[in-house]
Amino acid sequence: MTPPALLQLLSEVEQGKLSPSVAAERLASLPFEDLGHTRVDHHRSLRSGLPEVIYAAGKTPQQVVDIFSSLAKSGVDVLTTRASAEAAEAVFALHPTAAYNPTARTIALRQSPPADIAGHIAIVCAGTSDLPVAEEAATTAEVFGTRVTRLYDVGVAGIHRLLAVLDQLTVADVVIVCAGMEGALPSVVGGLVGVPVIAVPTSVGYGASFGGATALLGMLNSCSPNVSVVNIDNGFGAAYSATLIARAANRSR
Amino acid sequence: MTPPALLQLLSEVEQGKLSPSVAAERLASLPFEDLGHTRVDHHRSLRSGLPEVIYAAGKTPQQVVDIFSSLAKSGVDVLTTRASAEAAEAVFALHPTAAYNPTARTIALRQSPPADIAGHIAIVCAGTSDLPVAEEAATTAEVFGTRVTRLYDVGVAGIHRLLAVLDQLTVADVVIVCAGMEGALPSVVGGLVGVPVIAVPTSVGYGASFGGATALLGMLNSCSPNVSVVNIDNGFGAAYSATLIARAANRSR
Amino acid sequence: MTPPALLQLLSEVEQGKLSPSVAAERLASLPFEDLGHTRVDHHRSLRSGLPEVIYAAGKTPQQVVDIFSSLAKSGVDVLTTRASAEAAEAVFALHPTAAYNPTARTIALRQSPPADIAGHIAIVCAGTSDLPVAEEAATTAEVFGTRVTRLYDVGVAGIHRLLAVLDQLTVADVVIVCAGMEGALPSVVGGLVGVPVIAVPTSVGYGASFGGATALLGMLNSCSPNVSVVNIDNGFGAAYSATLIARAANRSR
Amino acid sequence: MTPPALLQLLSEVEQGKLSPSVAAERLASLPFEDLGHTRVDHHRSLRSGLPEVIYAAGKTPQQVVDIFSSLAKSGVDVLTTRASAEAAEAVFALHPTAAYNPTARTIALRQSPPADIAGHIAIVCAGTSDLPVAEEAATTAEVFGTRVTRLYDVGVAGIHRLLAVLDQLTVADVVIVCAGMEGALPSVVGGLVGVPVIAVPTSVGYGASFGGATALLGMLNSCSPNVSVVNIDNGFGAAYSATLIARAANRSR
Amino acid sequence: MTPPALLQLLSEVEQGKLSPSVAAERLASLPFEDLGHTRVDHHRSLRSGLPEVIYAAGKTPQQVVDIFSSLAKSGVDVLTTRASAEAAEAVFALHPTAAYNPTARTIALRQSPPADIAGHIAIVCAGTSDLPVAEEAATTAEVFGTRVTRLYDVGVAGIHRLLAVLDQLTVADVVIVCAGMEGALPSVVGGLVGVPVIAVPTSVGYGASFGGATALLGMLNSCSPNVSVVNIDNGFGAAYSATLIARAANRSR
Amino acid sequence: MTPPALLQLLSEVEQGKLSPSVAAERLASLPFEDLGHTRVDHHRSLRSGLPEVIYAAGKTPQQVVDIFSSLAKSGVDVLTTRASAEAAEAVFALHPTAAYNPTARTIALRQSPPADIAGHIAIVCAGTSDLPVAEEAATTAEVFGTRVTRLYDVGVAGIHRLLAVLDQLTVADVVIVCAGMEGALPSVVGGLVGVPVIAVPTSVGYGASFGGATALLGMLNSCSPNVSVVNIDNGFGAAYSATLIARAANRSR
Amino acid sequence: MTPPALLQLLSEVEQGKLSPSVAAERLASLPFEDLGHTRVDHHRSLRSGLPEVIYAAGKTPQQVVDIFSSLAKSGVDVLTTRASAEAAEAVFALHPTAAYNPTARTIALRQSPPADIAGHIAIVCAGTSDLPVAEEAATTAEVFGTRVTRLYDVGVAGIHRLLAVLDQLTVADVVIVCAGMEGALPSVVGGLVGVPVIAVPTSVGYGASFGGATALLGMLNSCSPNVSVVNIDNGFGAAYSATLIARAANRSR
Amino acid sequence: MTPPALLQLLSEVEQGKLSPSVAAERLASLPFEDLGHTRVDHHRSLRSGLPEVIYAAGKTPQQVVDIFSSLAKSGVDVLTTRASAEAAEAVFALHPTAAYNPTARTIALRQSPPADIAGHIAIVCAGTSDLPVAEEAATTAEVFGTRVTRLYDVGVAGIHRLLAVLDQLTVADVVIVCAGMEGALPSVVGGLVGVPVIAVPTSVGYGASFGGATALLGMLNSCSPNVSVVNIDNGFGAAYSATLIARAANRSR
Repeated sequence: MTPPALLQLLSEVEQGKLSPSVAAERLASLPFEDLGHTRVDHHRSLRSGLPEVIYAAGKTPQQVVDIFSSLAKSGVDVLTTRASAEAAEAVFALHPTAAYNPTARTIALRQSPPADIAGHIAIVCAGTSDLPVAEEAATTAEVFGTRVTRLYDVGVAGIHRLLAVLDQLTVADVVIVCAGMEGALPSVVGGLVGVPVIAVPTSVGYGASFGGATALLGMLNSCSPNVSVVNIDNGFGAAYSATLIARAANRSR
Repeated sequence: MTPPALLQLLSEVEQGKLSPSVAAERLASLPFEDLGHTRVDHHRSLRSGLPEVIYAAGKTPQQVVDIFSSLAKSGVDVLTTRASAEAAEAVFALHPTAAYNPTARTIALRQSPPADIAGHIAIVCAGTSDLPVAEEAATTAEVFGTRVTRLYDVGVAGIHRLLAVLDQLTVADVVIVCAGMEGALPSVVGGLVGVPVIAVPTSVGYGASFGGATALLGMLNSCSPNVSVVNIDNGFGAAYSATLIARAANRSR
Repeated sequence: MTPPALLQLLSEVEQGKLSPSVAAERLASLPFEDLGHTRVDHHRSLRSGLPEVIYAAGKTPQQVVDIFSSLAKSGVDVLTTRASAEAAEAVFALHPTAAYNPTARTIALRQSPPADIAGHIAIVCAGTSDLPVAEEAATTAEVFGTRVTRLYDVGVAGIHRLLAVLDQLTVADVVIVCAGMEGALPSVVGGLVGVPVIAVPTSVGYGASFGGATALLGMLNSCSPNVSVVNIDNGFGAAYSATLIARAANRSR
Repeated sequence: MTPPALLQLLSEVEQGKLSPSVAAERLASLPFEDLGHTRVDHHRSLRSGLPEVIYAAGKTPQQVVDIFSSLAKSGVDVLTTRASAEAAEAVFALHPTAAYNPTARTIALRQSPPADIAGHIAIVCAGTSDLPVAEEAATTAEVFGTRVTRLYDVGVAGIHRLLAVLDQLTVADVVIVCAGMEGALPSVVGGLVGVPVIAVPTSVGYGASFGGATALLGMLNSCSPNVSVVNIDNGFGAAYSATLIARAANRSR
Repeated sequence: MTPPALLQLLSEVEQGKLSPSVAAERLASLPFEDLGHTRVDHHRSLRSGLPEVIYAAGKTPQQVVDIFSSLAKSGVDVLTTRASAEAAEAVFALHPTAAYNPTARTIALRQSPPADIAGHIAIVCAGTSDLPVAEEAATTAEVFGTRVTRLYDVGVAGIHRLLAVLDQLTVADVVIVCAGMEGALPSVVGGLVGVPVIAVPTSVGYGASFGGATALLGMLNSCSPNVSVVNIDNGFGAAYSATLIARAANRSR
Repeated sequence: MTPPALLQLLSEVEQGKLSPSVAAERLASLPFEDLGHTRVDHHRSLRSGLPEVIYAAGKTPQQVVDIFSSLAKSGVDVLTTRASAEAAEAVFALHPTAAYNPTARTIALRQSPPADIAGHIAIVCAGTSDLPVAEEAATTAEVFGTRVTRLYDVGVAGIHRLLAVLDQLTVADVVIVCAGMEGALPSVVGGLVGVPVIAVPTSVGYGASFGGATALLGMLNSCSPNVSVVNIDNGFGAAYSATLIARAANRSR
Repeated sequence: MTPPALLQLLSEVEQGKLSPSVAAERLASLPFEDLGHTRVDHHRSLRSGLPEVIYAAGKTPQQVVDIFSSLAKSGVDVLTTRASAEAAEAVFALHPTAAYNPTARTIALRQSPPADIAGHIAIVCAGTSDLPVAEEAATTAEVFGTRVTRLYDVGVAGIHRLLAVLDQLTVADVVIVCAGMEGALPSVVGGLVGVPVIAVPTSVGYGASFGGATALLGMLNSCSPNVSVVNIDNGFGAAYSATLIARAANRSR
Repeated sequence: MTPPALLQLLSEVEQGKLSPSVAAERLASLPFEDLGHTRVDHHRSLRSGLPEVIYAAGKTPQQVVDIFSSLAKSGVDVLTTRASAEAAEAVFALHPTAAYNPTARTIALRQSPPADIAGHIAIVCAGTSDLPVAEEAATTAEVFGTRVTRLYDVGVAGIHRLLAVLDQLTVADVVIVCAGMEGALPSVVGGLVGVPVIAVPTSVGYGASFGGATALLGMLNSCSPNVSVVNIDNGFGAAYSATLIARAANRSR
């Protein structure tokens, strides 16, 4: 219930169009979301045009299809992350226009008219094994209507590869850096750009990489002050925050 | 060395104004920064007007004073973090206009003309013990020329305290959330706002808080997708990224 | 051996009905349970009417059936936790009235006359992935004769969902809260109710959730003082303690 | 704002006593606590008669005194935990009737008329080094008006010591067990009683006790199902939950 | 090379039966084992009559058979631990008199004449899930010629079960205690007996048992001073040390 | 209460010398220690002649003196471990014949007549920094009446030093090995001797030694099967178990 | 671009042979590798004759074949590590002269003329289970043209086995030591040789070996100062560094 | 005992100059060092001219002086690491020509004639806080007679600083890289040079740097294959291995 709506309701009471008891009932039964601070996820989706997102890990293909269809019915864009090929096939049967990215493991259904591209994210990854995470970030950002520049396989052990793409790096509004093993790339990238860097540790590595924990710890200790970090393999979360930043940077131009 | 400058140099060689050997020497001794991708920290400072920053932990008061004076000489703003009272006193003796925030442990010297305030950060903390970290973030952001709204002591065990300040929270360009112990506050805040949230775990707690590691882990696992995380007690880093975001959001309005 | 039984035995000795040596032998061979402090699990079951419980993890279906049948023979209620579908089928073959909850992975056989419901537990969980743990708690409590109110999918990233069920939360005698990932929900719930909260970390999450360890640590550091914690995924243990609390709260009314 | 109050406000609008805009403002500025679910900590204190509690760790004596006096002014009972001798002396200067327990490091000021004792907690500890934690629990519970039976130095390496106090153990409404090192005592106690056991790991030990983490882990893995756990050295939290349980068990008799 | 052998060699040189250069060569090429301190494992086997042992984990059935046959050829007793059923079948094909214990996963071949039983080990375990480890210890000790008393399923949550077997416990020369979860049993047993206790943490448990690490840490922090610890699930190692102790205690009687 | 005593009591009931109710009371109030399995620590001391032991860490000098005097009064030998110089001075004031070993931090008072030395322990340590732990073990064993051979500073980085003392090593009944850093020494020693080895990790080291945890883990993974392990720096516990083993090995010769 | 080349270019500009704009373009488009510090991996391969290396873990057989063929086309030697039998078969179909080492899981294709063997590495491992890692190191070094002496199964629990091969150990230019479990072998070897030792922890072990972490920690704490360490199971990396050392030691003789 | 010496001894026996029993005794009492494989540390010092080294941490100034003087007496060079200013002063009183490096905390006494400089080590560190570790490495290498190039404060957040010193980096025989926080520098350096890199994690950092563990883990996971790692803050060990490598590389030129 927005402030104008509240004023309208009270005016109707003043004008006798609405009895106090009926008005009281409506105010009392207000879902918290009508006060403007609840069901924020729903509101956020409406406000930003960001599609609803389904996290498919641990769900059966049937469960994924059910939720997907339920969301798709309302006409919004739908994004599913961590989706198996089986889940994708099941979705395609009902939603043949959905797109599956097998590397990113995402299923995306665009139903809204193409929005103006708002903002520009560079997505950097250290090695080819980081691709699933980088692509989860890339397809998420693209479904959210953000422009993505992919700069892959530019790990720090061959620093020239990174320097060679510096021009593409420095024009983005925000940079996502995915790296496993020692997770050193965000620090180097952070020193080369003047925008926020969102670091995504990946579970790439073996032995003392401890499933990505080493990369995570390294990124949290970055000596570049413009680096913040999300959970291991969380390409989706990085793209979410990055999209919010890229949109804000382009909101009013 | 910009492309025009390079062309100019080569033209002078062509015209005989510059001998090949002298030109070779100048090209050979090009500091990498002249190519546009090096000394980025220095460039970044020039470009953004962000002051130089000294991390005082592990430095003697004398060392802090020496670096401080060296930077101040060039007329830029200077910020020192993790500064003891002793270091502050030593700085005051030479720079009486510097300001010390004993809670934040920051020393700030403003020498540039007051800039237009660019962007708005809300800084939220869970309890009074988190104040040193929240204030490090707040004074850093303010020295960087960003508007700060402080919303302190609104921990999740009394959720009404947070809901009561919702209006102030939702108008910021970006939110910094500092919390120790279970580190739950960023998830709740992240669900209430539509902007990026930068979470700062603090070392507040005892026993199984393990010096802030528990709060750190909790924040990394946030179920709110707009949360990214910095190192334990790293108020400075949170403010740095938040300032970049807040500036971008207000650059062109 | 109860005090009256001991007195009776000694009287028989006094009266010559029992020789000292026979009496000595009987006293010497007294199983510790006869002294009132041993075989407590058995006694506890008799005293409280709580059914015997089988932990099926790591047991073959045949082993589960054997123990189940052995307990069922004595006429008591029997509860099996962590039971696979295979184990359930094997049990049904012999005990067709047993009930299997595939989400909770519990097999329950009620043989006692329906007891008066004693006490009221609210079981809250953060997301749908926490259901197996929440349901293990719920079916355990119900088999123990406690009333259960299920309040599911009310995670802290959408705090309004929790506030919307506040009325149902505040009337329970005790609250069980199941959550994975950052494990923040018990702190929020703990601040909203005036009864004990038993927190169950779940192994839901990925990356730095470390199989539930992050949620566990978060809950142990709760800033709500009415929260205590059980092992990861231990819905059964939470229901056991909660039942004892709920029964005590309703014992004498 | 209670329903009658809301009806009254709306009636005044209907009767023209209140303009819609003023009413809208009042409804918009409703503090959440008026809806009955906020400022719960304050409400809880009023409802239960539990005193306000100050956590003194990390606060200066002056800060402790200031908060203490502020709370004491309103006539409620005041409890301070983790208080140093210096803090206690500072409090005594202004509140000579306050009582300091140097082992528990608590300062308590009773101002309410003596309440009826409600409920009975047995507090068990493994060794004399656990006394500070056990006493923090004991004095907290006593300030909260609960009867406490202290059963100290009954560690599992001399199990007879525990069996010797079994009678005292089995009559309590709830048992708190404090233990460091291997933290085995709660499992043994849990097997001997039919009431909830709240386990408090203590930081007593050396080497691989890792500051209490070993005891904590042991207690979380207890094979007794009636055991729940609080943070390392958190005697206060254990007493808080235990008091709620003990009160509930005695509410209506 | 024993001292007499050395003297013999030198005498032969003195007598001209052996040239200095040939003697030098023989002395220079002396395998270290001839000096009495090398190939200790082989020597130990000869000296104590302990059979050779094969650790089958990570070996193929064929590899196990090859080593088994090679050892068996020399007529000694052979013990294989961590052997799969497949490995056992492969061994039986060639060594039909070998015995497989499927719970302990051991294959044993007795070829030496039955030795006098030397020493007495009590093996205690907390629950039925600990049986594989306890049985690995038991069959190892029995193959080594030690008498074993099995006292199973006497966990601390039902302390009476342990007290009921106290007589059997106190007559052993050494006690092995296997327990998972909180690993509390060795402390209790250690307090009840006057002989060395060797504790074996097992990987039994879930969640915060961390694969036996919790039990391991608990046992290392035992408050009973007569407890020492071996690796998680290392029933073999416990039996090895226990056998050495039990033999020493019975050597000269 | 021994069997004869029980028979006597029952006879008195039969003969009318004791009323059934008085006998029942006496049987009911039997302290568990009278049954032969309680107060085991006290019994163990009496049976074995091992002195009482005080763990002084975390106790004030006055507390140490009080307990020391209380024990000394009964005429037994008294051993205090982890005692500061201050505690030792305080003890000397009242017990001038007590002996303080500043390296081992032990205070020992011998009051019993010199016992026959029973058994022989070799105590090996890797470096001079391990001396406090090795000496705690050595003085403990000596106070317990065991012969000790000290073989210090024979770390594995100079394996010849260990081989040079092999003769002294192989004649002991049991070997204690103290080592910090990588904790490799017990494995090497275990391969050289045919008796049980008790490994004591020490907190010697820096960086990734993590306060002795690395040495502890190494010893638990020893490839020598005759190695068992006690807590970090627990020289006392190692000597306790070793003494029991050495005594058993020499009991009947 | 070397200094002479730069001078040449500038001279051509001076002489009018090259227009300034063309020269500027060439200077501007200089790949970083032309400056001598980029594409270092490629340069290093050319300079040292070390073959290109493919890390096959996480790649499909087809992907391995594609990269393999692409590299082989240029005529260089190609090494693939962590290759499955399936990948090897796929490679053989196209490159029948490639060699697969199933223990090391390496595929090697020699295409360059046999180089002079440069340098000598001794590779030591503790047990037969460490063979895959030791062989990965051995085949890597051999493909790199280094002489390898294999000294396998010489673990510290039978120290004589190591001493018996001392002669072979001390003639190498560098020693690689692979060990799992307690990881003690590098310390012993380090004390016996005067050359650098590269320690490779292996994931061999169970329980508290924590997947090789214990061996890793032990090696990092080695008391032999000539030991450095690589990641768990990283035989390739050890061989890489060792080859560089062995080559340097033999470069100019 | 060298082969010639052995032959000599045997010849004397043949010639009757030495009786067999005396010869046997001498052979039997041969210290292992005479066989050429023991007391290796001593031999190594003699062979390489490397001075004796004292690790002063945990030693009193007096103890340091005693060992220092004892070593100095024999005329060798002496190096002390981790020495406090107090220890240095105590040494100066007796050895006025010793040199103390307060940053490195080393005391060095040169007594041998200046050796030819053999080999060249580049020592790189990330920040000024890493200086104590870098200087420990530098002074150690210099005392060992190796040339050292110091390249300090070239952390990865300003990659240009490192590229600017590339020429100095690429001419060294081996590179030592010291870094704290995320420990990313060795990977970048490893990609830029063709020689072995020894990485030294430092304890520089805060929060999730966990005393250097994060840097250590990062370095172990380096994607540059020429990186090996030593313990946290172990500048001495790095210099030791690096010196061996640098010497080998220059031995025969």
